[in-house]
Amino acid sequence: MDRARDYLPLAEACLGPSIWHYLQTGSSDASVTDKQNAFTTIRLIPRPLRNVQGGHTRLTLYGQELAHPLLLAPVSYQRLFHADGECASAMAASAQGGQMLVSSLASQPFAAIARASSTENLDDPGFQLPWFQLYWQGERERTARLLQRAAATGFSVVVLTVDAPIKRASLQLPDDVAAVNLENHPPPAPLSQAQSMVFDGWMKQAPTWDDVAWLRQQTQLPLLLKGILHPDDAEHVLALGCDGIVVSSHGGRVLDGAPTSLDVLPDIVQRIDGRMPILFDSGIRSGRDAFIALALGATAVLVGRPYLWGLTVGGALGVAHVIRLLRDELEMTMALTGCAQLGDIGHHCLIAR
Amino acid sequence: MDRARDYLPLAEACLGPSIWHYLQTGSSDASVTDKQNAFTTIRLIPRPLRNVQGGHTRLTLYGQELAHPLLLAPVSYQRLFHADGECASAMAASAQGGQMLVSSLASQPFAAIARASSTENLDDPGFQLPWFQLYWQGERERTARLLQRAAATGFSVVVLTVDAPIKRASLQLPDDVAAVNLENHPPPAPLSQAQSMVFDGWMKQAPTWDDVAWLRQQTQLPLLLKGILHPDDAEHVLALGCDGIVVSSHGGRVLDGAPTSLDVLPDIVQRIDGRMPILFDSGIRSGRDAFIALALGATAVLVGRPYLWGLTVGGALGVAHVIRLLRDELEMTMALTGCAQLGDIGHHCLIAR
Amino acid sequence: MDRARDYLPLAEACLGPSIWHYLQTGSSDASVTDKQNAFTTIRLIPRPLRNVQGGHTRLTLYGQELAHPLLLAPVSYQRLFHADGECASAMAASAQGGQMLVSSLASQPFAAIARASSTENLDDPGFQLPWFQLYWQGERERTARLLQRAAATGFSVVVLTVDAPIKRASLQLPDDVAAVNLENHPPPAPLSQAQSMVFDGWMKQAPTWDDVAWLRQQTQLPLLLKGILHPDDAEHVLALGCDGIVVSSHGGRVLDGAPTSLDVLPDIVQRIDGRMPILFDSGIRSGRDAFIALALGATAVLVGRPYLWGLTVGGALGVAHVIRLLRDELEMTMALTGCAQLGDIGHHCLIAR
Amino acid sequence: MDRARDYLPLAEACLGPSIWHYLQTGSSDASVTDKQNAFTTIRLIPRPLRNVQGGHTRLTLYGQELAHPLLLAPVSYQRLFHADGECASAMAASAQGGQMLVSSLASQPFAAIARASSTENLDDPGFQLPWFQLYWQGERERTARLLQRAAATGFSVVVLTVDAPIKRASLQLPDDVAAVNLENHPPPAPLSQAQSMVFDGWMKQAPTWDDVAWLRQQTQLPLLLKGILHPDDAEHVLALGCDGIVVSSHGGRVLDGAPTSLDVLPDIVQRIDGRMPILFDSGIRSGRDAFIALALGATAVLVGRPYLWGLTVGGALGVAHVIRLLRDELEMTMALTGCAQLGDIGHHCLIAR
Repeated sequence: MDRARDYLPLAEACLGPSIWHYLQTGSSDASVTDKQNAFTTIRLIPRPLRNVQGGHTRLTLYGQELAHPLLLAPVSYQRLFHADGECASAMAASAQGGQMLVSSLASQPFAAIARASSTENLDDPGFQLPWFQLYWQGERERTARLLQRAAATGFSVVVLTVDAPIKRASLQLPDDVAAVNLENHPPPAPLSQAQSMVFDGWMKQAPTWDDVAWLRQQTQLPLLLKGILHPDDAEHVLALGCDGIVVSSHGGRVLDGAPTSLDVLPDIVQRIDGRMPILFDSGIRSGRDAFIALALGATAVLVGRPYLWGLTVGGALGVAHVIRLLRDELEMTMALTGCAQLGDIGHHCLIAR
Repeated sequence: MDRARDYLPLAEACLGPSIWHYLQTGSSDASVTDKQNAFTTIRLIPRPLRNVQGGHTRLTLYGQELAHPLLLAPVSYQRLFHADGECASAMAASAQGGQMLVSSLASQPFAAIARASSTENLDDPGFQLPWFQLYWQGERERTARLLQRAAATGFSVVVLTVDAPIKRASLQLPDDVAAVNLENHPPPAPLSQAQSMVFDGWMKQAPTWDDVAWLRQQTQLPLLLKGILHPDDAEHVLALGCDGIVVSSHGGRVLDGAPTSLDVLPDIVQRIDGRMPILFDSGIRSGRDAFIALALGATAVLVGRPYLWGLTVGGALGVAHVIRLLRDELEMTMALTGCAQLGDIGHHCLIAR
Repeated sequence: MDRARDYLPLAEACLGPSIWHYLQTGSSDASVTDKQNAFTTIRLIPRPLRNVQGGHTRLTLYGQELAHPLLLAPVSYQRLFHADGECASAMAASAQGGQMLVSSLASQPFAAIARASSTENLDDPGFQLPWFQLYWQGERERTARLLQRAAATGFSVVVLTVDAPIKRASLQLPDDVAAVNLENHPPPAPLSQAQSMVFDGWMKQAPTWDDVAWLRQQTQLPLLLKGILHPDDAEHVLALGCDGIVVSSHGGRVLDGAPTSLDVLPDIVQRIDGRMPILFDSGIRSGRDAFIALALGATAVLVGRPYLWGLTVGGALGVAHVIRLLRDELEMTMALTGCAQLGDIGHHCLIAR
Repeated sequence: MDRARDYLPLAEACLGPSIWHYLQTGSSDASVTDKQNAFTTIRLIPRPLRNVQGGHTRLTLYGQELAHPLLLAPVSYQRLFHADGECASAMAASAQGGQMLVSSLASQPFAAIARASSTENLDDPGFQLPWFQLYWQGERERTARLLQRAAATGFSVVVLTVDAPIKRASLQLPDDVAAVNLENHPPPAPLSQAQSMVFDGWMKQAPTWDDVAWLRQQTQLPLLLKGILHPDDAEHVLALGCDGIVVSSHGGRVLDGAPTSLDVLPDIVQRIDGRMPILFDSGIRSGRDAFIALALGATAVLVGRPYLWGLTVGGALGVAHVIRLLRDELEMTMALTGCAQLGDIGHHCLIAR
């Protein structure tokens, strides 16, 4: 298990230290350690002798037929990792029969990514273009224009990220890497001495529930919210007519000491009780991890760093290989626990210690 | 988060090893490790999409308008850390719209500290001078005289420390640093062979509940007791007509294996149920820590070592910067958990693991 | 206690690194650490002053009189460890009045092992030949032929291993070590692109419950299933007319994050409630470990690595000495806890922490 | 706190490595670590402002007036540590107003120890000679003769050790150190091949409950049993007309994985409910540790290694100093928790974490 980790040292050797640090931030600190501990403290019960021949990992999600539930998480500026950038990831996701969430901060034009994604699928009538991860653009008009550009490209699902209103100090981008699909932002109005940088500055740029209700009116595409960690908020998403959530702690990068996605998943699953899909993000490193998230009630999972290691080392082929490794591990875990299909996976497969 | 810790290595480089050891005592031992673990095992739940524009950290405490709930803890002999001593700390507290507790063992005259505190506030009608931390002086008359001197200076609140009857072997003070506001103590009467150094010596110098009742009669100022860790004792404070408590483990310096302030805070909050303010002391290192103490029911918190690191490195400016860092972190934590005001912070923001 | 561990460094010195690694795999990873922790977190309560004179460790199992409940686990290719291979282990088990489970992957002919086992017992009318551990051979016919060969040799009990359908990459065997009792397998039919290596490849070779029901019809010998970790599966074994189970996690080598045998033993014991013997495998390193497994309800235990250390260092004499050490430790633990016979050992002897 | 530990490195420097190892055995292994953890995981609640003037640590035990509840544990062969041996320890215990348990394996004649003990107390009418720790001598007659010799010397209490029937490989004694108060044992009868060294050898030498009943008839002195860890056994002691127990794990030296004395103390206290004194042994290193044992219901505690460190370094003066340090720490802990007398110490002073 955990074969994708074989790519980690190779990727580190390929990247400069600042980009490597940018990629792995949150990876060695307490948040991420917690996350991995959360996965390793769960035990899976082997169930030998069950007949699982003909088993598979297929599912249907938002009308899309997927070969497996391992989606590529939205990660910005992928040309930092490989010259082929998001196009390579999209091509690999598509070739492996899965899906990718394309970041608002992609470093290649939406149209190029869409094209890379569909190359191998020109003849598949059921094929659908990648999903689009939307960052709020500080105000409704600018956000609407970005959404419009993504929808015009043909992206098939919209995922609004809501958990990162305050950006941390980050990487100095190289000259040839940029968020090419965004408008230039005007600088924010200066604050008076009595105003708070947090409350009157950053948070003024953040979306609110009212903005989500407005956004729901702007598109017919399935709309998901990414970064939900509380059952009440999940309920609110449903009440606003949205189509799903991604339980996510944003790679451990925003709030120190936030609970892990795995900590809160069971309560959210119980509250939503099947009324919408619940995707799981954060900390998936192996097919075993994916199995655990599915057993706790996730409909599918987002994979982050492992595919970027693969992208760094081998471009589209590296990403495809990582996806295949994770899927093989998921299949092995299913076989050993006696699950022939995703629907057989459940809480009964686990022992919490 | 935890930006104030950037001052720690700088402060260590500024101080001689004996003073550094004096400052950090209890900091690397089991007591303090417990304390920090207590904070790190608590999880904060992000609540995105809430409208927190216009949020702030203001509160009113004993009739005083404070910009934030981060009080400077009473620390003795501050000229050990910087030539400007308590005056620098008082000036910074005042400039940042907060308050300071001035120690009975201050190394500068009360009048000078009061003056430094009010420099920037000559025109503010609501301004009030620092609070006074009172050590029991072994007997009532001597204690009354010390209290009298502090009140005459204009100090606005009295905080009696009750948890340190037995002093540990401590620092040899340099010649130019002394408790300039205290009378000389006569040496205690010698003990007979059959008497106990503890019960008949040290504890004879310690205040009792009867002494607290007597003290309550000696002043009209708000009177708080610092060092309360048991709900019954908190109840007793209230019954004697005092105005508040500081839950504190005295920097881990007195009783090995005492519970942390964080361990006992919830029970005391539940018992007192809003009948008086409960201040929290011990182990606050970041705005996130402060948020947790407030969420568990504290009205405000005392900050200790971090501001002394700032004092050591940069005098009044260093202290002011540390306060500002902690306040920014508190604001960020509030914003990310959807709290616009202190009153929005509560137990519902936390998950204990 | 834990005297058998004295053989570990000696054995390491005798073996090349690849064989040593093969033997100890799973021994330094999380699974095995868990296993050992499980044993060390249990406390035994000394019960002095009880009269235990004349105590012993004898038991009757499947009609066989055994001097002690410490069976030698089935381990493949024992000529890797010592030129005398399985014959040495069988001779030692027999000389010490116990039993051995001979692996399907034994590196010596079944007949030779049987002969070595009976040398010292030619005159003992109650003596019975070793037990036979059966690996499923991918299909019923080939499995039946292997079973037939073992039964013809006189092996007295059949133990089907069910928990290792997927073999991990393993050791390159030396030229003179082989599974001499097996037929050559034909290579499996190649998979199409759309087929899953896991579900359509490996798992097609694995036995199912239907195959167990079929196997039950093929032999009159007692039939046990090894690798059961779930009470429902234990119940199923009973329903199919089998005669016992071995609770085992296969040396930690198959499914990452499986529970330890010790974790699941109590639930299985409670469910089966004495209706068939329950043997315990995995992690026994001392007589104290064996005592704990017995106290939790096991009828007997399988010992693995310790006897291979003894085999490596001293052949049959080394194995016999290890068995004797473990038995002495078991007797001491019984004496100190006031147990004169195996039947006195029970849950009341333990405190879980 | 834990000032007695200052003697540890000094003592190590005084002793040869084999004697040091003999003294500290069990001290660095899991059993002892457990023991110390057990003490450090308990929290004491400071209760300031209570009037504890005139407090003391006196108690009456078996008709003897003791200045404090810190008894010297029975330790064999004390001339290994200092030329003055048991006489020095007895003199110190007596000078500090406490008591000592003299081992059956003392390296000086009982009469000499008794004399050393009474030197300073010739004029004290209430003074009583040390207690006597009795090892069972393999049979009743020999045991009766040993008891007779000890009683003839004037020893005032008998404590039968019941938890060490199996002696571990131990120190090779120097020529001038021996158990001078014992008869020579005849070698045990050889065992037949079929007999068990444990059940038919060692355990035949161990006392049983019947022997305890017999012993109770042999003496009018108070009779205690040392090594009881189970409430049922404590009850049995009472039923046989004995006068108390010592809860003890024999320095961690007998059964691997036995519970600590601290683990089992509360259950035994609850069961006995004041019907006889319960003494506590094992792991006391500071006055704080003693306080915890008393708070959990012990009547008094036995101190072991710390006084041997003192004996090694300073003879009688070293022992006396260690006792004084522990007593001062006990007094300080009492004062800080608001306890003026031993009777004020109780479970309400603790928080288990």
